[in-house]
Amino acid sequence: MTGSTPAPFTADDYRARMERAARTAADAGLAGLLVAPGPDLVWLTGYTPTATTERLTLLVLTAGQDPDPVLVVPTLEAPDAAKATGAPALTLRDWTDGKDPYAATAALLDGAGRFGISDNTWSMHLLGLQKTLPGTSYASLTEVLPMLRAVKDATELELLAAAGAAADATFEEIRNVAFTGRRESEIAAELARLLRRHGHTTVDFTIVASGPNGANPHHEVGDRVIQPGDMVVLDFGGLKDGYGSDTSRTVHVGEPTEEERRVHAVVREAQEAGFRAVRPGVSCQEVDRAARAVIADAGYGEYFIHRTGHGIGVTTHEPPYMVEGEERPLVPGMCFSVEPGIYLPGRFGVRIEDIVTVTEDGGRRLNDTSREMVIVD
Amino acid sequence: MTGSTPAPFTADDYRARMERAARTAADAGLAGLLVAPGPDLVWLTGYTPTATTERLTLLVLTAGQDPDPVLVVPTLEAPDAAKATGAPALTLRDWTDGKDPYAATAALLDGAGRFGISDNTWSMHLLGLQKTLPGTSYASLTEVLPMLRAVKDATELELLAAAGAAADATFEEIRNVAFTGRRESEIAAELARLLRRHGHTTVDFTIVASGPNGANPHHEVGDRVIQPGDMVVLDFGGLKDGYGSDTSRTVHVGEPTEEERRVHAVVREAQEAGFRAVRPGVSCQEVDRAARAVIADAGYGEYFIHRTGHGIGVTTHEPPYMVEGEERPLVPGMCFSVEPGIYLPGRFGVRIEDIVTVTEDGGRRLNDTSREMVIVD
Repeated sequence: MTGSTPAPFTADDYRARMERAARTAADAGLAGLLVAPGPDLVWLTGYTPTATTERLTLLVLTAGQDPDPVLVVPTLEAPDAAKATGAPALTLRDWTDGKDPYAATAALLDGAGRFGISDNTWSMHLLGLQKTLPGTSYASLTEVLPMLRAVKDATELELLAAAGAAADATFEEIRNVAFTGRRESEIAAELARLLRRHGHTTVDFTIVASGPNGANPHHEVGDRVIQPGDMVVLDFGGLKDGYGSDTSRTVHVGEPTEEERRVHAVVREAQEAGFRAVRPGVSCQEVDRAARAVIADAGYGEYFIHRTGHGIGVTTHEPPYMVEGEERPLVPGMCFSVEPGIYLPGRFGVRIEDIVTVTEDGGRRLNDTSREMVIVD
Repeated sequence: MTGSTPAPFTADDYRARMERAARTAADAGLAGLLVAPGPDLVWLTGYTPTATTERLTLLVLTAGQDPDPVLVVPTLEAPDAAKATGAPALTLRDWTDGKDPYAATAALLDGAGRFGISDNTWSMHLLGLQKTLPGTSYASLTEVLPMLRAVKDATELELLAAAGAAADATFEEIRNVAFTGRRESEIAAELARLLRRHGHTTVDFTIVASGPNGANPHHEVGDRVIQPGDMVVLDFGGLKDGYGSDTSRTVHVGEPTEEERRVHAVVREAQEAGFRAVRPGVSCQEVDRAARAVIADAGYGEYFIHRTGHGIGVTTHEPPYMVEGEERPLVPGMCFSVEPGIYLPGRFGVRIEDIVTVTEDGGRRLNDTSREMVIVD
């Protein structure tokens, strides 16, 4: 059992995050930040509404030294918002059904300002603001402040490491169950059960892609019955104490062929090369290039059809992205996946994935089960 | 047990919906419709990606007689999208990590056109399109085509009625369980279990708001132990075979006081008045006014702090809204909640909610358990 008590964040922690975000926004030439329910709001305030609906909830931070945080919320939801851990660090401003929430928000904004707005804010809300304040302009938070949540503090690193350890414990158990004759969906259900038993409160994905299904990197799970001789991609993760896990291992049912061994070894070497490329100051795209070069050199370049990695934190998918064109440098405390793969259409696929955090002089894996090809029954 | 097989929609059904949407868009002066993953995309194509991420998935419909539907999807997800029931009625256009999905989408759009865009499309995608095609303009789908999904066909009505019957069966069971001495969270878990047993695949909410918690309309559930003398608001629903349920009843533990009886009776009368106001041609706001008048006349106007209702279909929350200012007329086939309430801060709340569909000459309830105050143990 790897369940543990989360290190609690306090109202002061959230205040410090909001202040840092507001200063960074000023440096980026923004008038402020607008944050709808989702990972950015959780990270800045600890608040998650029961549901994200058409009713506007929006955190307004003014750029500069004093963010003067105001959370615009539906009247109905104000009592819940007031209970959020970060609530003492902000002002609630509620609006009632039938009233115009964009007018209420506009009153808080510089009518000629440029604002960063959280990526997942509903378009209907952005359009409402654009219409109400035609002099304003907007950019997505990921574009203007891509690294806002990317560098994790010590407590966050602990939580991510604990989530990774829980994912590792899950793999150590799943590798010992019988695969032959069982449906992918049964193994997936087992993965979900294990992640929960090891302390996950949310299971985001449990990919079990056997045989030819493994050649589709986003195949989730199906009714295919796993056969002797199958390669099986396992890719699973979720949230434990509010922070994410995400790991992949590719196992084989019974003895692999020479070709299967070779492809697996290439991916393993690529993953190792990506991991070794990690150190402060190296650009994100260098991690992608390092992993990709190994696969290309082995003649499988056209079968590695996705980027090498994505960040992880309060979500299992966020900046920084390890992708060609991402020239920003790695900074100690960043955490992201390194997950190259080879996908042979109609035949099989292999992917190996660890979460890696940038240290002062290199990288450290937050997943650390064997990367050899594990043989399962 | 009220589980049943869903009436299946076919590729032709989805083609017909896309054609209707494209014609309606032309009538509204739009160049086309842009639809991201969510209820609109499910309704138009039957497709739901495994997860909604920062990777752009967007259905493009050209306004007019031939919508020429194109679904822009990440290469990774193209195989899954190709399996959607509506896929034969559209063209897939995939884009690969590292490429610009907005440029790929822009190639399909009239660079000077005005487009309807689904409400929940991430702002980052709208900003990407606005930047790539500065001559375009956008309006949220709810604003320009609010009633696109509002009028249900016969099959949809059957599915909503079946979901309503399952919610009714759930209430008939929950009213017989012991409430006294149990936590709200236990009753909520029981509601979720019952909804699933009666065929729900998704449980969207199981509100159990006892005593003073009932005065917060969006209180979901907590650890409060239910006491004799408590009023308890139960509000629960989710999706069964892809269509929604949503009903509320307020029960009482043991004998109610005179005041509790009076408040419950006022809400019941208000709900009845809202229901009776339903008929074709009446505006949505008239339904709100009819219910609200009863509560105001009884002296509780200031304690009815939300609108009277919301539409339901492939989501449990959608247009049409029964709210002051919504002047659009009711049309046969529309389905929505009628759910007035009175919330006495620090003391208790009462809400009664049924889903109602507009018939040729009035309304028909899709929930029909007793609206009397049920006494529970």
